[in-house]
Amino acid sequence: MNDLISQLRGAVGAAHVLTDGDLSAWETDWRKRSRGKALAVVRPGSTQEVAAVMRACAAAGTPVVPQGGNTGLVVGGVPDESGREVVLSLTRLNRVRAIDRDNLTLTVDAGCVLQNLQQAAEEAGLLFPLSLAAEGSCTIGGNLATNAGGTQVVRYGNTRELCLGLEVVTAQGEVWDGLTGLRKDNTGYDLRDLFIGSEGTLGVITGATMKLYPRPAATLTAWAAVPSMEAAVTLLGLAHRHLGAGLTGFEVMGQFALSLVAKHYPQLRVPLHESVPYCVLLENADQESEEHARSVFERLLEVALEDGCAADAVVAENLGQAHQLWHIREAIPLAQAEEGLNIKHDISIPVSRIPAFCADTDGLLRREIPGVRLVNFGHLGDGNLHYNVQAPEGGDMKAFLNANEERVNTLVYEQVKRFDGSISAEHGIGLLKAGKLPDYKSPVALGMMRALKRALDPGNILNPGRVVHI
Amino acid sequence: MNDLISQLRGAVGAAHVLTDGDLSAWETDWRKRSRGKALAVVRPGSTQEVAAVMRACAAAGTPVVPQGGNTGLVVGGVPDESGREVVLSLTRLNRVRAIDRDNLTLTVDAGCVLQNLQQAAEEAGLLFPLSLAAEGSCTIGGNLATNAGGTQVVRYGNTRELCLGLEVVTAQGEVWDGLTGLRKDNTGYDLRDLFIGSEGTLGVITGATMKLYPRPAATLTAWAAVPSMEAAVTLLGLAHRHLGAGLTGFEVMGQFALSLVAKHYPQLRVPLHESVPYCVLLENADQESEEHARSVFERLLEVALEDGCAADAVVAENLGQAHQLWHIREAIPLAQAEEGLNIKHDISIPVSRIPAFCADTDGLLRREIPGVRLVNFGHLGDGNLHYNVQAPEGGDMKAFLNANEERVNTLVYEQVKRFDGSISAEHGIGLLKAGKLPDYKSPVALGMMRALKRALDPGNILNPGRVVHI
Repeated sequence: MNDLISQLRGAVGAAHVLTDGDLSAWETDWRKRSRGKALAVVRPGSTQEVAAVMRACAAAGTPVVPQGGNTGLVVGGVPDESGREVVLSLTRLNRVRAIDRDNLTLTVDAGCVLQNLQQAAEEAGLLFPLSLAAEGSCTIGGNLATNAGGTQVVRYGNTRELCLGLEVVTAQGEVWDGLTGLRKDNTGYDLRDLFIGSEGTLGVITGATMKLYPRPAATLTAWAAVPSMEAAVTLLGLAHRHLGAGLTGFEVMGQFALSLVAKHYPQLRVPLHESVPYCVLLENADQESEEHARSVFERLLEVALEDGCAADAVVAENLGQAHQLWHIREAIPLAQAEEGLNIKHDISIPVSRIPAFCADTDGLLRREIPGVRLVNFGHLGDGNLHYNVQAPEGGDMKAFLNANEERVNTLVYEQVKRFDGSISAEHGIGLLKAGKLPDYKSPVALGMMRALKRALDPGNILNPGRVVHI
Repeated sequence: MNDLISQLRGAVGAAHVLTDGDLSAWETDWRKRSRGKALAVVRPGSTQEVAAVMRACAAAGTPVVPQGGNTGLVVGGVPDESGREVVLSLTRLNRVRAIDRDNLTLTVDAGCVLQNLQQAAEEAGLLFPLSLAAEGSCTIGGNLATNAGGTQVVRYGNTRELCLGLEVVTAQGEVWDGLTGLRKDNTGYDLRDLFIGSEGTLGVITGATMKLYPRPAATLTAWAAVPSMEAAVTLLGLAHRHLGAGLTGFEVMGQFALSLVAKHYPQLRVPLHESVPYCVLLENADQESEEHARSVFERLLEVALEDGCAADAVVAENLGQAHQLWHIREAIPLAQAEEGLNIKHDISIPVSRIPAFCADTDGLLRREIPGVRLVNFGHLGDGNLHYNVQAPEGGDMKAFLNANEERVNTLVYEQVKRFDGSISAEHGIGLLKAGKLPDYKSPVALGMMRALKRALDPGNILNPGRVVHI
């Protein structure tokens, strides 16, 4: 081991190999569900240094855990408790390498913070649309490794759809330069998309070329009260028809989720939620003008009110109001935490089946756990719900979680399976769900995943035990 | 072999195992560049029958060549001359399985003809946007296996971006049911995108769930004369800014390409091409109304004329005129064939570098081959050019091709490499370019491709020798 440490020091400089002191920032996951112990935290400063680290670890047979901003939600980027794993932190790779306005592309190091990509695009008069709660600290490498989603997926897709090319260091410490800015390239297998979403188990992403878009001339936000989840789905269909690609956000929020925001953050003044089971937040981006955006948006809401799929609706009058509406949406997880511990799910269901899924699963949980409270909200436009379960009011929440977490997870996941959904829509598998995956993925798919893992990482040194067990 | 044939008959019925008579429809490729000899043509009628065929061939160690509509352009779907390969034709798998309006998805058998998907979507009041010249006979399975492009990529992406889920029969004859209609699913490796574009070398696609879109309220077409390729790129940037996602087509056509259409199809009356080096065809789809589409489009063209990046422009007054403009674009390959044999390329280059690529490569070819004629046209919005080379006027075209094809290919591909492009933008590799690939793909990428091929098809029975040599 001393031999490996000295090789790592030789590769990246002694100052960038951390073995002593408080390493908890790298060893503890974002939600503090896991506290591991690293053999070392290694912070290379270039792609070549990443390759040298991988070669040294491969030769020593030492497992490597790639890490970006460490904001993942499934314990996929922190070391286990063995003290045998090296944390490979990419945050020193933080250059914006190039911006190509005519090609609408941005090439960056993997350790760039997401917000820096958004800013680089904005400075070039363009848009990088990936946006999510952790954008101030997550890195694009982590976004790619987990195929992050966020709030603009209904228009721009997940991180996968925003990526054109990758630079990757393999398990053997070779560098694959796949940093293409091409929209079309049919020269062999799609290596790019195999690395995207593989959570650091197949290779280490060190750079990426991402798509940029023209900036909209205006972006408007509306808030609608809807009489049922069926109505929310109808409203979504109308929004697609009226706004086309102008529809950039479509979030649904259950009444109880909003009541928690109203209770813990009264200053946010949640509108229209008291008499309906759900509210919807819509965003409309327009290439033409605010005036045009407003007329199209108002026409949509008129039609929705006539149809009855919206009971009431408001369009934000200005940017301040729009931010406030988004703020309410983003405050749900915080309000939920204020209310106490809860059991989180990040699921997706075909949009058409979400009303039946919710009715059925709400009923099932209420029968099984009297008094249970459901904090249901999410990206309805993508069929993605954060279907969270809060303990009955007033009880011992910790005791509730200990007694019920496994059972509730199983109840929800079995429902997800019945409705052809996914047990992880946008957060990934990591260590947290790796044990569950075999119950919800076909043996044929798992067999292929294992074959691919063995093909690209035969020594099983890249993030072993995460995603898939081989 | 007789043993295998009788097993195949048992699997799919004797009537669907063809071994005698004229099999040239399955044995000859679309461009008639290759005439092979099949051991048998097998036409299964269900996914389970495909699986049985694969199991029988795997046990016998007999190579299998999956085939859809047999409209591929790179000799990837026809048997070689050995008489040892089984052609697995998917065309009897032609059911539309399901359409889900609220989820905006369409699930089909792989053998469905592309036009049937377009029609099924239209009947549901929705849009399936994939569109290409062979749409009346190519199948969606072939489109997926080759990640086909076409004319709407600038807005909707390639076939890959239109697919949510796949059903695949593996080399071992297992069925992977990955027919999800989910927009978000981060539960493990991206098997879907690995099969898409793998040209039948990793698995046999038997079904797919594809994305649908709202139908635009109006679609308009414009034609602009541009003073240079630089100007065409400037116009593209303006179109992105003014139309946003309304920009659904952006085609560029060189003057000589258009002069061939004017010569061989004078009735098509090619507009505005006589005094400029390039013309551009733009398409704008609008969710609101034809009136709105026209006002936005006219504003764009005004700005372009002021800027000077367009020398002249017309917007089609009605659907008939719009079809006529597209007809001119689509007549280029036909006019080219009327003019005689030529050397075709399907390349992509970052949009920003296309002007320099064309200037440089045009000059190089003209110096190397005095009198050479360049038929340059393509999907500029995606950086995809069909950069074709026609013999000097009046000479012996066959002799020209024999003497120059390899040399011209190498000249063009080396230029593509210099400009960070791809030697196959939308057509794939097949057998035609498999020998060339190692010159233009990094050893690290090729090494990973071989490892993946060995992992999923260890017996090397799926379309062997196509795409990648192992």
